[in-house]
Order: sequence, then C-alpha cells, then structure tokens
Amino acid sequence: MDISDPMKDFFEPSSVAVVGASRTPGKGGNTIVANMIEFGFEGPIYPVNPSAGEILGLTAYASLAELPRVPDLVVAVLPRLQTSDLMKECAAAGVRSVIVPAAGFSDAGDEGRLLEADVMSIASGAGIRVMGPNSIGTVNTASGLATSIVTLERLKEGGVTIFGQTGMFASGIARWINTSEHFGISKIACLGNKADIDENDLLEHLADDRGTRVIGAYTEGVRDGARFARALRRAASAKPVLIMKSGRTETGRRAIESHTGALAGSESVYAGIIDQAGAIRVADFEEMFDCAKAFEWLPAPAGNRVGVVSITGVGCVLSADASDAHGLVMPLLQDSTVAAMRRALPEWAPAANPADIWAGIESAGAEATYRAAAAAIADDPSIDSLLLIFTLIPESSLDVAALFGELRQAHPEKPMVAALMAGEAAMHIQWKKAIESVGVPAYTSPERALRAIGALWKYKVNTQRTGPGVTR
Amino acid sequence: MDISDPMKDFFEPSSVAVVGASRTPGKGGNTIVANMIEFGFEGPIYPVNPSAGEILGLTAYASLAELPRVPDLVVAVLPRLQTSDLMKECAAAGVRSVIVPAAGFSDAGDEGRLLEADVMSIASGAGIRVMGPNSIGTVNTASGLATSIVTLERLKEGGVTIFGQTGMFASGIARWINTSEHFGISKIACLGNKADIDENDLLEHLADDRGTRVIGAYTEGVRDGARFARALRRAASAKPVLIMKSGRTETGRRAIESHTGALAGSESVYAGIIDQAGAIRVADFEEMFDCAKAFEWLPAPAGNRVGVVSITGVGCVLSADASDAHGLVMPLLQDSTVAAMRRALPEWAPAANPADIWAGIESAGAEATYRAAAAAIADDPSIDSLLLIFTLIPESSLDVAALFGELRQAHPEKPMVAALMAGEAAMHIQWKKAIESVGVPAYTSPERALRAIGALWKYKVNTQRTGPGVTR
Repeated sequence: MDISDPMKDFFEPSSVAVVGASRTPGKGGNTIVANMIEFGFEGPIYPVNPSAGEILGLTAYASLAELPRVPDLVVAVLPRLQTSDLMKECAAAGVRSVIVPAAGFSDAGDEGRLLEADVMSIASGAGIRVMGPNSIGTVNTASGLATSIVTLERLKEGGVTIFGQTGMFASGIARWINTSEHFGISKIACLGNKADIDENDLLEHLADDRGTRVIGAYTEGVRDGARFARALRRAASAKPVLIMKSGRTETGRRAIESHTGALAGSESVYAGIIDQAGAIRVADFEEMFDCAKAFEWLPAPAGNRVGVVSITGVGCVLSADASDAHGLVMPLLQDSTVAAMRRALPEWAPAANPADIWAGIESAGAEATYRAAAAAIADDPSIDSLLLIFTLIPESSLDVAALFGELRQAHPEKPMVAALMAGEAAMHIQWKKAIESVGVPAYTSPERALRAIGALWKYKVNTQRTGPGVTR
Repeated sequence: MDISDPMKDFFEPSSVAVVGASRTPGKGGNTIVANMIEFGFEGPIYPVNPSAGEILGLTAYASLAELPRVPDLVVAVLPRLQTSDLMKECAAAGVRSVIVPAAGFSDAGDEGRLLEADVMSIASGAGIRVMGPNSIGTVNTASGLATSIVTLERLKEGGVTIFGQTGMFASGIARWINTSEHFGISKIACLGNKADIDENDLLEHLADDRGTRVIGAYTEGVRDGARFARALRRAASAKPVLIMKSGRTETGRRAIESHTGALAGSESVYAGIIDQAGAIRVADFEEMFDCAKAFEWLPAPAGNRVGVVSITGVGCVLSADASDAHGLVMPLLQDSTVAAMRRALPEWAPAANPADIWAGIESAGAEATYRAAAAAIADDPSIDSLLLIFTLIPESSLDVAALFGELRQAHPEKPMVAALMAGEAAMHIQWKKAIESVGVPAYTSPERALRAIGALWKYKVNTQRTGPGVTR
C-alpha cells in the first residue's frame, strides 16, 4: 500500500468495482454505473451483483472474488447492515480502497456508532482505506470517475476541486455549477462521516495535485486540529483554499452531531487556524463558488486599486461601500483617463471613479459609452482591477462578450468582473453566459463582485506573507 | 394646495402632462408616454411638444398653456438647462407638482448646484412641489401611473411599495421583480437629488396609504434627521418598513456626494434611528426583496420556533446556524410528531428537528417523504414556522406547489418558506415559480429563508414593543 498517497485510488483508480450494482434505473447501484459510463471512465468498471449477468451493457460478477483482477476502488452500494461482511470480502480479495455510501452509522445514534466501529476495525485490520460511511464518493473529470449515487451529467473539466462533509458536492452542487456557474471541475470528494479519510487527507493530496488549481472545502469540524493546521497551511501556500466552516452557533453544533456525528469544535479556534494558514474563509456556498470562479479565471491583481464603471449611481455607492469592506481602494483617475472618459459623457457629467455613465448612455448609447469609459479606466496605470456594472434593461444593450474580450486582450494582467444588477431575468441568464464565455465572472451585485476581487487580493497578500511554496 | 398630503399628485394624479414628449422611440419623452399607455393610466395623458400633432395616438399640445386643463402632475423631460424656464411656465399655468428627470444638477458639481437652486427657488416661490431633479418619477400600479423614462412592462399589482434615491426602482429593479420575484407592487418612487420631496414625505404618506402593506426604502442620507426619526417610527408602527442605508464606509460616503449631492451622515446615528423606529435594516436589495416578499405573503409567526425539513444534512446544519443568527430557535419535536415522521423514514434514521429526510427519499421517494415529514412538523404545536429545503436533482421530484398548497391550507397561521439549494438551473426557475404561485417564498439558501422568517419575527416583536398603530 502506497501510504504516502492514500487518495490516489480514490481519484485515479485504474479499475472500479460497484458492489450492489443494480439493473433498476433510479437505484443508487444503477446510477453509479450510469454515471461512470456518462463520464467516460477509462478503466474497467466491474458491476457486482449476486445474479451476475449484464448491467447497462457491462458484464456483472456474482462476487468480488470472481473479478478478473483486484479493483483499485470498491464502491459498496449495500444496506448498512451488510457493510461489515462486504468489508471482510474486500479484505480477503486484497482491496485497498472502499467508498461506503450507506448512511445509518455514526450519523444515527449509538447503535450506528457501534456498527461503524465494527466496519472500521475490519478495514483498518486489513489496511483498507475507507471514504465514508454516508459518502457518495468522488468525481475526477479527467479520468471520468464518478461514483455518485445521484444522476449526474458529464461535468465541464477545469481546475476547481471541491470536497467536504456533504453529498451535495457530487449531486445538487455539481449540477448547479454545470448549468449555471460555467467554471470547470477537476475533482470532487464527499467525505460523509469521515470514519477514515478526512479533510487532512484531502488537503495533503490536493496541495500537490496538478489538476487542482483552486480548492473549495466544506467542513463541520476536524478530529486532528494540529494536522489540519499543517495541512491547510501547506495547501494554501500552494494554491488558493476557500474554506466554509459551519457550526458557528450552538444550534449549528448540535445539528452537526446528528448530521455526521462529528464534533464541531470552537469557532474561534477554527477562525485562527484558517487565518494563520492563509486560507480564505467563505460564509456559504455562494461565496465559495463566486471566489472559486475568480481564482480559476483571473490573474492576481498587482495591487488593491479598483476601477468601477456603472450604469447607475447606486452601483457606484454600493461598490464604494464594498470596496472598503473587502480591503480594496478606489483611487482618483489620472488626468489622461478623465480626459478620455469626458469624451464619452455630456459636458456637465462628472468623470470619476467610480464612474456613473448613465448620462452618456442616454445621449450616445450603451455600446459606445461602456466601451469608452471601460477602456479608459482599464488603461489607467493607477487601476489594478476593473468592475463593470450593468442593469438588464433594453436601454443597456451591447455586445458584452466582445467588450470584455477586448478589455481582457488589452489588459490580461488585470482582473475584470461584471455585476448584473436586477433587470430582466431572461437577459440575466443570457448575459451571464456571454460574459463568462470570455472568462469574466458575472455576479448579481457589486458587493459580490468586489468580494471576489478582494479574495484575489487577500490571497496574494497572504502568499507574500507566508511565501509561495512554503511546506510543512 | 393640499399641504397635508403633497404626495397625492405624485401617486394619484387625475391627469398627467409629459413636457418634452417625443415621437422618437427610445427617447425618454416617448418612453414615458408608452409606459403610461402600457400600464393603462386612467386619466388623460397630455403630451407636450412644440410641433404639437400626435404622439403614440394621443393629441399633443405645443405648450403647457394650451392644455384643456391644468394637469395634476407634470413630467418635464427636458435638457437640464431648459428646466428653469419650464418651472416658470408651470408656475404661470398653476401646476402644483413636477417631476424632473434630468441629471446634471446637485449631482454634478458647483455649476449644477447653482442651477438646482435656481429651479427650486422658482418652484418654491410658486408653491410647486418637485420630485428630483435626477428622478425618473413614480409608478402606481392601481391607477396605471408610470413616469419612468426606461421602458417597463406592466407590473403585477400588489402591496409592496419601494422608493428611494435610485432610478433602478423604476427600471432594472421593477423588471427584476416582475420577471423573477413574483410579488406585486403597489407604488414606486425614485427620489433622485431630493431637492424637495424626500424620504420623509414618502414615509409620512405611505404610513396611511391603503394600497401599501410593506415599504422598502433605499437611502443615502437624509437632511432632517429628527423628522426622519418620527416619520420612520410612524410608518414602521403601521406596517413593515425595510430600510437599506448605504454610505456605511468612508469611500461610500464620498461616492454618495457625487451621486446625488447628499450628505451620508454618521453610520451609528442611522443605525440607532432605524432600530429605535422598529424598522428592519436590510444590507442590500436582495435582502429587501427577500423580506418584502415574506411580509407580503406570509402571516406573522406566533413565536420564534422554526421547524426544518431538508433533503440534505448540510441543509440542517446551515439552518441551525442561520436560526441562531436570526433570533429563531429549533425546538425538539413532540413525541407524536416524531412518531409520525418515523413512519416516513427507515427504522434507523433519526427523526428530529432539523429533519434530514434523505434516507426516506432514497427508500420511499421524495413525494411521500416530504409530505409525511412536512405535514408532521407543520402539525406540531411547538413549531411556529416551517422551512422546507430542496436540492434540484431528478431524485427529488415532487409536486411542490400541491405540497405547499396543502400545508398552507392546513396551517394558514404558520409562515412557510422554501430553500432551493443548488441543482439544475432550469429546475430552479420552474420550482421557484411553482412554489411562489401558492404564495410561498422560495430562496436560494436556508440562510436567506430563515433571515426572512427572522424579519417577520423581529417586526412582530418590534410592534409589540412600540405598540401597533402608535403615531407621532
């Protein structure tokens, strides 16, 4: 067993056995096989089912012992009470890595805790690493691995890896990212009860994982705080780590115990560990994906000076509040920038940062006014990053993908983001898609947009402080 | 002039003159007339244009002096430098109420400030009340009034009135509410530079306005703090007032001065006024509309005890954190409730509050499991409000409108909300529409859902404290 990298079999198995594979659509044991086929898994998939035969066109085997080879990874889609026996079979067959989706272990009272202890003692006695129980497993878009018991469509490949104590990552959240967020996924791991594999294993593995450029992690609490602090620091010095920690309140901590049986631990201890590691704490999934997208698509800003172009004065005011809140500043523009902007605005209209360009839009149209103002501010050497604010009304129509395409080409070194404030719901979907097709994140408010830029800046400051590439 | 209610002409004029009306589609002076026709304005609309003739099928007049009667309201769609002359014509014609959409006044430096002072001295000398400058005016869905210079489709009628220092309310935000938020609007007012009509006039008017059940206000700062404190307290004791105050930071305050020329004032003073008035402070437009919808559709909860049913454990944990954060509690369920829920879950699965029902969904399907668990918790007398959490995956399919319809019928006294966490983007739109068609607000996270319930509870506590119907 390669003890230096226990996660390899969970992300890059050359073969996978699905024990409890089913011919019935809608059953977890059918869905996993369907997902692996949908994702184009490269290695052999071995459905295991007492009646053998064929499942979704693949040869099924009556038991683990009958497989043509020892699979790198076993997914055990069995009722919880059959898990101990399965673990014994795995031990006998020489299996090293098992995912256990069933719930009803330490997430379900004392009896469940005893059952989990039994399963785990068999596993550890045989040197088997376990993800779960209560885990819907892993996804690796590069190899086509997808062990979720919830139906997935093939995910867009990219550099963002998400993991944590929820099956949402490989079900609802994967679907949300794929249909609405437009960024690509490298890997997913759903850790469930974390009887064995936990956040620390993941962070240690992903710090060196080439396919992973950004990490998003959700945790309800860890067992080994010292190792967590080390692993988080090492990962965060190698790449951005966005971390969402729940159980911030008393009621939250109580709910966690019944969710996965974990202890949530003290809020202040986690806050300190996350901050000292140079990771980015996020409040919720929205912030995690907002920031992940920015890290995946945008360069690090050279400084914290942001320029804002807005169709509406309230966009300017909200941006100003948000810039202060997220460690950014809004500098005055250089004279040449002001002069260039003035040409796009009526003579009486102020040209400033943030820039309210409604007067120009009213007189010269959105296309000309946005282009002139945005190009001028993007060219200004005293500006490090750019936010364009739109509201989706017919009067603001313009070719927004072309606009951002040109801006990014002219200034590939400056992060650029869009805020789509209110307006037509259908236009919102189209515009978001168009803007994100050229690698520019589009958010629903200036606040969200500048929070993402603030995260890029904070990470840059953190890595300068801890030094890039610092390891344990 | 009815000095006791200066706002009446701005919301319920029996006739409206559009000075600067235009035959050219896309021009503000054309759009206003088109909006009034689209909204079905009941009284006469008088387009005023030097070349007279017809505009959008309506007889146009060469000047104000030629109108068949003195209009209750004049909208002056003219370049800023013609505004003083127009105000003189209004004075001569006996007009009492004027909306000035043009910008370039106190929002544009010293020269603009002088111009505004000139316009306002003419107006006040003649007893004319002015909304603006830099104001795109008002909407009243009941009478079909819609003076926006931005194209609007007819808005759904309802009880929410929004006003403040941004034209977004009668442009992008109106479109957003109409296409995505599903609640109905009573009135809108965009106050612009507030040279005359301001937040205080609006609050005093709306406190007694029968069509308005909920108020959402955006302010960058008021001139008369003492009157604001009184007006806000009076309005908030009559109906829920959601208030968004920007300029919370130094950069924000600087941006406000160039937006509308207002002084933002001290954050702590506003925080105190809003709190003492019993109004609800909201951080952004998202929170304003989240809460407005809850107040518009839901009853006040009898207490702060919330019950949660979730497809996913992380939904339970996030709900627990959010409930603490928003002044709610998650009580233990009564034995009979636990027994009823147990029938919908596998024997090993815990039945608790918050309730993670995934194990039941896996074995019995989403329809049966949600129905059983939600009905049981809704029936529990120790629960005052209910949150159902969904994730939009094929495995969670159910008739969600029917489910909520039945729950609301069984317990009309209990506020109910939904959280649609992640999942398919297209399913999200459909589900939101279905759930909201039966008057249940659907949010994107447990946090947003419980923030809205928390606002209902907070308002109830506030009005109990200040006493309902307390007036100046």
